[in-house]
Amino acid sequence: MKAVSGLSSIASLPDLDTLSLAEQVAQMVVVRASGYLFDHQIQYPDWEPPAATLQHWLQDLGVGGVILLGGSAGELALRSHQLQTWAKIPLLIAADIEEGVGQRFSGATWFPPPMALSAIAHQDPSQAQQYAEQMGSVTAAEALAVGINWVLAPVVDVNNNPDNPVINVRAFGETPHEVSQLATAFIRGAQRYPVLTTAKHFPGHGDTAVDSHLELPVLPHSAERLAEVELPPFAAAIQAGVDGVMSAHLLIPAWDAERPATLSQRILTGELRQQLGFEGLIVTDALVMGAIANRYGAQEAPVMAVEAGADILLMPVAPAEAIQAVCEAVAQGRITPERIRASVERIWQAKLKVFSTPKAQSTDPTNLPDHLAQPTALTTAADIMRQAQFVQGVVPLPPEPSGSTHLLRNLIVIDDSLSCDFLGKQAPAIALPQQQGYQLHLLDRHTSLTAGEDAAGIFSPTLLQIFMRGNPFRGSAGLTPMAEDWFKKLLKTGELQALIIYGSPYLLQQFLPELPPELPCIFSYGQMPAAQAIALDLLWN
Amino acid sequence: MKAVSGLSSIASLPDLDTLSLAEQVAQMVVVRASGYLFDHQIQYPDWEPPAATLQHWLQDLGVGGVILLGGSAGELALRSHQLQTWAKIPLLIAADIEEGVGQRFSGATWFPPPMALSAIAHQDPSQAQQYAEQMGSVTAAEALAVGINWVLAPVVDVNNNPDNPVINVRAFGETPHEVSQLATAFIRGAQRYPVLTTAKHFPGHGDTAVDSHLELPVLPHSAERLAEVELPPFAAAIQAGVDGVMSAHLLIPAWDAERPATLSQRILTGELRQQLGFEGLIVTDALVMGAIANRYGAQEAPVMAVEAGADILLMPVAPAEAIQAVCEAVAQGRITPERIRASVERIWQAKLKVFSTPKAQSTDPTNLPDHLAQPTALTTAADIMRQAQFVQGVVPLPPEPSGSTHLLRNLIVIDDSLSCDFLGKQAPAIALPQQQGYQLHLLDRHTSLTAGEDAAGIFSPTLLQIFMRGNPFRGSAGLTPMAEDWFKKLLKTGELQALIIYGSPYLLQQFLPELPPELPCIFSYGQMPAAQAIALDLLWN
Repeated sequence: MKAVSGLSSIASLPDLDTLSLAEQVAQMVVVRASGYLFDHQIQYPDWEPPAATLQHWLQDLGVGGVILLGGSAGELALRSHQLQTWAKIPLLIAADIEEGVGQRFSGATWFPPPMALSAIAHQDPSQAQQYAEQMGSVTAAEALAVGINWVLAPVVDVNNNPDNPVINVRAFGETPHEVSQLATAFIRGAQRYPVLTTAKHFPGHGDTAVDSHLELPVLPHSAERLAEVELPPFAAAIQAGVDGVMSAHLLIPAWDAERPATLSQRILTGELRQQLGFEGLIVTDALVMGAIANRYGAQEAPVMAVEAGADILLMPVAPAEAIQAVCEAVAQGRITPERIRASVERIWQAKLKVFSTPKAQSTDPTNLPDHLAQPTALTTAADIMRQAQFVQGVVPLPPEPSGSTHLLRNLIVIDDSLSCDFLGKQAPAIALPQQQGYQLHLLDRHTSLTAGEDAAGIFSPTLLQIFMRGNPFRGSAGLTPMAEDWFKKLLKTGELQALIIYGSPYLLQQFLPELPPELPCIFSYGQMPAAQAIALDLLWN
Repeated sequence: MKAVSGLSSIASLPDLDTLSLAEQVAQMVVVRASGYLFDHQIQYPDWEPPAATLQHWLQDLGVGGVILLGGSAGELALRSHQLQTWAKIPLLIAADIEEGVGQRFSGATWFPPPMALSAIAHQDPSQAQQYAEQMGSVTAAEALAVGINWVLAPVVDVNNNPDNPVINVRAFGETPHEVSQLATAFIRGAQRYPVLTTAKHFPGHGDTAVDSHLELPVLPHSAERLAEVELPPFAAAIQAGVDGVMSAHLLIPAWDAERPATLSQRILTGELRQQLGFEGLIVTDALVMGAIANRYGAQEAPVMAVEAGADILLMPVAPAEAIQAVCEAVAQGRITPERIRASVERIWQAKLKVFSTPKAQSTDPTNLPDHLAQPTALTTAADIMRQAQFVQGVVPLPPEPSGSTHLLRNLIVIDDSLSCDFLGKQAPAIALPQQQGYQLHLLDRHTSLTAGEDAAGIFSPTLLQIFMRGNPFRGSAGLTPMAEDWFKKLLKTGELQALIIYGSPYLLQQFLPELPPELPCIFSYGQMPAAQAIALDLLWN
């Protein structure tokens, strides 16, 4: 049968010596694609190629890997199977599943963001490490089940700047020690399965206040400070056997005043390869990101990254042109053939790891239900959420007096109601208050209802639920003032019955000083339905 | 391999004589289940059992079929495979895919509602019939690819009551003739593949103003009028070889003053089986619906339906109790064993049809991408939308004068932004106006922004897009006044630049008389992204 022969054939790698230079360079390229099965479902046409183009890249050019976004876990299992059958050479299939496969692909287990583990570690470090290890293990097992063999995690950045718009709760903590402890536990867990892990973003993206998706941030610290704060988690991850290290699009003047880490030989080769002794895959962060694409161009950036020491060019702006540009740089003597060969040998090592064990060949999509969202995995995720949850005030809520004519209000503030996969009408944040007689009001950046425009004169005890991640002051411009206005208005009128924040501990810190200590206030790192159910259970249990 | 043996084994039906009475009755039951793969994804826990319960029903009780809702096409292919491997006897797997598989399961082809074909038929009946046949053919082929072998379509109700809250654009037209023509064309198309088709809802649900999901509607017409208007499309469908006829939860005093059609022997056996000579599967509409469940109870309703002549009990409130109650009715002599046997023989005929041809065994989920949303299918769907689209006024829009300081506004009115699978942030209705500089404002029933609360004094040329289906005056209470308020306000201020209605032709009829004839107004039967792209293309082409 096709399915089965397709799956078993992906275990065989061709002899490296049979590859042309262009084929070798193509193996260094990982392209972005939609996780959905059909072209008409493509969400980001600028970045995600249609099937015909993708098939050409995999079949004819022999591109080395694909990074996937979009689709459910079930669709992804079919999609990764499809891509492997297209590929000339077995593919690395990667995904940004920092919070488990369920973070990106519905149906699989979705853990709260890593910083939840840091909150637990403050009370019980060994428990937190155990959770981190389970999180790594479940993530790797489920990745394998859907055909992902490259986990782009853990984040080992130290989030010591609360203004950080891009790392934030994605970090395992705010000190090098806790990040090292938890991230290596995650790696240990993942190593139970034949998938690759990746420490990111070298040399550390935790202390920036600029999002490199948009611009090039600068890390203005001395080499000594880097060695003290940023580097230890990378050293620990390398020591723990991490398979890949992803570069950051950051300028670090202490090491290289001109080139961002992704394109800097002094940093990737000098610091990471030589000083830290990393022998695994050096992978760039996405080359389409503004910090690189806008400055260096579609052909020069890949060449510079290879010169710098990268083995994998992630999401180049134009894959075919990138391959050609690198080949030309070899022809011109700017890059040696040995440099290419060394990278491809590392890629071969990685592919041998993921394709040569029996476990790696067990991804028959029809077996999927036996491998994802198993009870122990869901329980671990729920335990982490419950244990990391912050609760203040008197819970449960007192029952509404019988005969009360109050209009109970469930006021939800989210960034974008149209792109919110954790908040359907059956989600606990909506369904549970509804069962209690609360009426839903929804505010997002497309509804301009401000606190002053509320129907006047009616006293409405209000449950305020705010879903906000990242830095609330930069990442979600416009939303925080709206949440803040409502928070203050409801406090003033006495209508604020309870406050639940899902996501940002920094928003909690902003609101907490103004709250009467008896007023129920809950903070959860998670935003998914399970997190909502756990938080709301406290109010009406 | 498990996948393959599971698939080939479903082709073998046991000898009917080896079935116990309880096993025979169980074959008459079709249960509801979630199309998602995992229990934690269940959207309607009151109606959709967890895996353990469902497996018990299929494996131990030997229930005859499952009706599925929820999940993408990819997930559904895996889900139906899973259910077949659980089942003691190969399952009928049904879905309400009146507008193609893509209506319910994302990724597959989604056609506009049948009434779009009626609009085309008014100009070109033979073209409309050709489309209906293609729609039936594509729907059947894609159903088969995802493991659905029972298409709960076509609707053959004659929608001659614009106040109808439940049929509306689901009908193929407003006269018996056009419904007969188009519905039989749909059946002809579907018959190219080994799937079952179903004419519904007998004897006709088109002339009611009550939704039987909630209450029991009455059809107060004479037998003569039924023979003239309601019955001809059923007779035509039977003539065309439709496999099943679904009963309506309707009281038809001319035939039976006491029992609704679903539970009436005079109607199901007397009229449908004997008078119309229908030899196929008589299937009830869902027995959990209020019109039946609230009046007759979980055990009596199934017994009455079997007495009436139903072969299939769709979604009984409690499947195990329903089976037991019917068995007891046989033991008590209320129902004869021959009556049960006759139904199971019809079910066997149907199962032989869907399981005994080579085509029926080709549903390897990993081949899915080759079978869904093929270019010709997507083109047909788009052609239907384009041809049924209503356009008035001057298009394209004139370009905004350079230097204009107008704030362009894209005002979208939808029922529920949280449960709106056709309107993500990449949907054309949002993305295309955004490319033209329009700012999105979103109104749904959870946002209480009324027309008067708008920021005063700023002139904002506004594109008003309304997504509304069914009867706008009953089905979406509260939403129509909001849409109407905005429509009138924007007309008055001169800010209304263009109006697009997706879904209800009846809303169009309400707004049309007030519109200046030159003002661009577009109506599309479809609401999906393809319909949005086709409509908006007229504004900025």
